[in-house]
Amino acid sequence: MTPTRIAILAPGLIGGSVALAATRAFPKSKIAIWTRRADSISSIQSALPKAEISTDLSLLSGSDLVLLAAPPSALPSLIQSALPYLTPSTLVTDVSSIKESVENSLAPLLNKKARWIGSHPMAGSEDSGIQAARHDLFQNAPVILTPTTSTSADTVRDATSFWQSLGARVLTMSPAEHDAQVARISHLPHCIATTLVLAAGRDSLSLAGSGYRDTTRIAAGPSALWAEILLANRTEILASLQNFHSSLTQLSSAIEKKDVASLTKILEEAAQIRRTLPHA
Amino acid sequence: MTPTRIAILAPGLIGGSVALAATRAFPKSKIAIWTRRADSISSIQSALPKAEISTDLSLLSGSDLVLLAAPPSALPSLIQSALPYLTPSTLVTDVSSIKESVENSLAPLLNKKARWIGSHPMAGSEDSGIQAARHDLFQNAPVILTPTTSTSADTVRDATSFWQSLGARVLTMSPAEHDAQVARISHLPHCIATTLVLAAGRDSLSLAGSGYRDTTRIAAGPSALWAEILLANRTEILASLQNFHSSLTQLSSAIEKKDVASLTKILEEAAQIRRTLPHA
Repeated sequence: MTPTRIAILAPGLIGGSVALAATRAFPKSKIAIWTRRADSISSIQSALPKAEISTDLSLLSGSDLVLLAAPPSALPSLIQSALPYLTPSTLVTDVSSIKESVENSLAPLLNKKARWIGSHPMAGSEDSGIQAARHDLFQNAPVILTPTTSTSADTVRDATSFWQSLGARVLTMSPAEHDAQVARISHLPHCIATTLVLAAGRDSLSLAGSGYRDTTRIAAGPSALWAEILLANRTEILASLQNFHSSLTQLSSAIEKKDVASLTKILEEAAQIRRTLPHA
Repeated sequence: MTPTRIAILAPGLIGGSVALAATRAFPKSKIAIWTRRADSISSIQSALPKAEISTDLSLLSGSDLVLLAAPPSALPSLIQSALPYLTPSTLVTDVSSIKESVENSLAPLLNKKARWIGSHPMAGSEDSGIQAARHDLFQNAPVILTPTTSTSADTVRDATSFWQSLGARVLTMSPAEHDAQVARISHLPHCIATTLVLAAGRDSLSLAGSGYRDTTRIAAGPSALWAEILLANRTEILASLQNFHSSLTQLSSAIEKKDVASLTKILEEAAQIRRTLPHA
């Protein structure tokens, strides 16, 4: 799809990066940005000089693609307010890290009023806010689309085409499957990076090399948003934490018992799995 | 210090990077490389075209700096064999990630036979071997020197000067203090990255974004060397793992109880600590 008008609601790092990437991918398209706060217009304008920016949702009118970049808890009321400016052909998607709860809250509101499909770009940074946005954030990044039995084939096709135009690698799965898999590959790492920072403490930070730096990078992310994500995907995350706890007990036990064979086997198994991931 | 001849024994990633960095820092110095295996000479020669390379320890003769880059367990026998080629003025140091056990095994052997001091450059990569060596590996990296009451002031000064010439930021502490601090800031992260890879499993790797990638990078490191390190610093690492376990229990409990205030507080505390670390 080649959208003529792309509206992005409440952009931070991700929404701002979509705006920058879409400006390059669709040079003839108009980018329209809605922000809740008038005092953020100037910083958005400096990040996106060519964009049309307003605190009035009427700027959605005529958009063929609407991207919801607000936190998951803010989405239902935002969509309620946006409904007058959507048409049944408007493609509406989001960027939330959780999908089943977003699906359950948004799909009924948008049913027959727009073409809705959930999106989750697996890209980010420890930095947040539109100032941290990057035009290349989605290059080779996985973006997960979460169609349901109610999603039309053309909605999946157009959302796939849009993200691919920004450089992303698109995968498709159900909202529930998304939440289970992302618990393991994203939400668990966030919990663990956070715990590692607290366990390592402040006293040895001057000694930190690239190992500590990379292992803990994501722990600097926005706390309130992450609290919301972790609680929204609570059941899957608790299961992942239980897996982690079991693996940690095995590793600790091998060290405790000075069991070099078991310890080497554990380290080698993890190294082999990790080495299957291509260099970034 | 400006060494005229620098000998590096058994270089892999770290020793090879010292050779590359020293070639730039001391263009007039000769770099001499000892390797145990004749069949590795050609790969070392292609990484370090100007170096003198031999399997004979007599190439140490005349070196004013000897860098031990073999694994910790190999160092005592290596030093025994190297003793005939050292003089009381030769500066001898290593690159081991553990310091108290290395100190206890090497210091008696080198007493009055060379100027010995332990070094630990906090730099590395998930890649290993001399092919992964980089001339800029030590730029702004912390290097910890571990002098004892037997270490002379000129030994500390010359070792400091050498690492600073390679771009490093030098810190000094006792071997025991090193092992306690590095357990928290390096060995614990390695244990946790390993555990995270095993807990996350293989099935969702196609979804991995930069968060998983960074959090787990170091888990791809060499297993046998890491088993040796973790067992050599066992007591301190078990204490760090216990701290981690306590912090993880708090985080899990906040998620379990849907306690958004506690969860946000935990996430925010970690984020604040991590944000004190400057960008790399």
